[in-house]
Amino acid sequence: MKNLGYYNGKFGELEEMMVPMNDRVSWFGDGVYDAGPSRNYHIFALDEHIDRFFGNAAKLEIRMPVTKQEMKDLLNDLIRKVDTGELFVYYQVTRGTGIRDHVFTEGPGNLWVMMKPAVIKDGAEPVRLVTTEDTRFFHCDIKTLNLIPSVMASEKAKRAGAKECIFVRPGGRVTECAHSNVHILKDGVFRTAPTDHLILPGIARAHLIRACHALGIPVSETPFTQDELYAADEVLVSSSSNFCFWANEVDGRPVGGKDPENREKLRKYVYEEFIRATE
Amino acid sequence: MKNLGYYNGKFGELEEMMVPMNDRVSWFGDGVYDAGPSRNYHIFALDEHIDRFFGNAAKLEIRMPVTKQEMKDLLNDLIRKVDTGELFVYYQVTRGTGIRDHVFTEGPGNLWVMMKPAVIKDGAEPVRLVTTEDTRFFHCDIKTLNLIPSVMASEKAKRAGAKECIFVRPGGRVTECAHSNVHILKDGVFRTAPTDHLILPGIARAHLIRACHALGIPVSETPFTQDELYAADEVLVSSSSNFCFWANEVDGRPVGGKDPENREKLRKYVYEEFIRATE
Repeated sequence: MKNLGYYNGKFGELEEMMVPMNDRVSWFGDGVYDAGPSRNYHIFALDEHIDRFFGNAAKLEIRMPVTKQEMKDLLNDLIRKVDTGELFVYYQVTRGTGIRDHVFTEGPGNLWVMMKPAVIKDGAEPVRLVTTEDTRFFHCDIKTLNLIPSVMASEKAKRAGAKECIFVRPGGRVTECAHSNVHILKDGVFRTAPTDHLILPGIARAHLIRACHALGIPVSETPFTQDELYAADEVLVSSSSNFCFWANEVDGRPVGGKDPENREKLRKYVYEEFIRATE
Repeated sequence: MKNLGYYNGKFGELEEMMVPMNDRVSWFGDGVYDAGPSRNYHIFALDEHIDRFFGNAAKLEIRMPVTKQEMKDLLNDLIRKVDTGELFVYYQVTRGTGIRDHVFTEGPGNLWVMMKPAVIKDGAEPVRLVTTEDTRFFHCDIKTLNLIPSVMASEKAKRAGAKECIFVRPGGRVTECAHSNVHILKDGVFRTAPTDHLILPGIARAHLIRACHALGIPVSETPFTQDELYAADEVLVSSSSNFCFWANEVDGRPVGGKDPENREKLRKYVYEEFIRATE
């Protein structure tokens, strides 16, 4: 099949799948998700993603209906049912089913999987970015389904002809993007926001930091501001859907392009790691 | 039927209703809702709720698939299909259906309705409340489906044997509750948070303010703190599900009970207004 949908043991073409109206996602967006790429039917960094997925469910006290091994086996089974091995592999767990009531429903969560064709790009071409005020909640460390601000930010980027939208908290601190982390290179140092409650601890971000260590690039996990973003030697954006992109424009201003050596080393390192792991 | 579910023209017993997996509510909680009580098959304050509902959809650029009049006609038609006229009448619109992608899908939103039996209480009995840190986003003026923090707060209240949970922003400002507004009486004045981006402009709140005007009780729409809450003469909680409750305990401390005359006048005024309007 082309796009796969799975819900609590049933699966089929995504566009045909139906779910109970009373799933708590309908009333509260009450769930967490994770996602990553597959290539040649190999799901990349699956252990890391599954660990984060279960950790996020635990933070919200959502009871997983499967073990980690069962979850991995399920995903590895389902990718074989799709026409291509180049996929965006997405999964979520929602807090059960029941008549709308804010307090927790009893019983385990509902398990969802969605897969659609997607090819990871190498990130060689620069992208445009925009910024927007970060008005999100203080649980951005949890990968929840409460994503309206990210929806609005993504639409803002699209309308501006940009690839992503960067969130900036009042006061000027850059946090992350609508569905990516953002980093800068300045004076040879890789700067990235610390993993507090304002950003998601991205797995592509962790891979970039490991790449810096391997390449001898110093890493500073400290907040940086919008002004520092504009003045950076390079601006990098990472996610599990697009490992590492670099920007040549933010809010219509030219940015980056001043440390192509380190930027290219990093970009190629994480992309080639993905290619090797999914041969 | 007992509980009714409706989705884009189809309806049936709520527990049997199915919706498309690709409704954007599933991936982003991407929608807004409104709700209010019905008694004797009369939906209370329907014009006010429908105005707010359409206003909230517009704030998020969600295209309504019906006019206001069509929406009211639909609800007035659907309540007749339920076994009782004492109902919680709930409705939401979500931003269409499509493969998961943060940017807006094209076309109008999906319309949902849910009804379940519920009887409005007169609020004569005092209730217990708890507080929790308000870590929500800065769009609390919009009645969105991004409600995980309210879910967590409601569960906290339940575990503490309390009726509701009050949000307090860092710095001590009281905003509102998980699914209600909160107000205090102090020295004969009705104090309630202003309608900025930190609270929902509750319709029961508006009715309480109008009741104050009718009863000659001064109203101050200014922020108050957790300490002022503890020291208040009375603590009142209002919502469209429970017009006006009063608290005799917050976080295990005795509160209120020091201005029963004004409290009872207000409580009875809004309850009797509801009863008269739904004869």
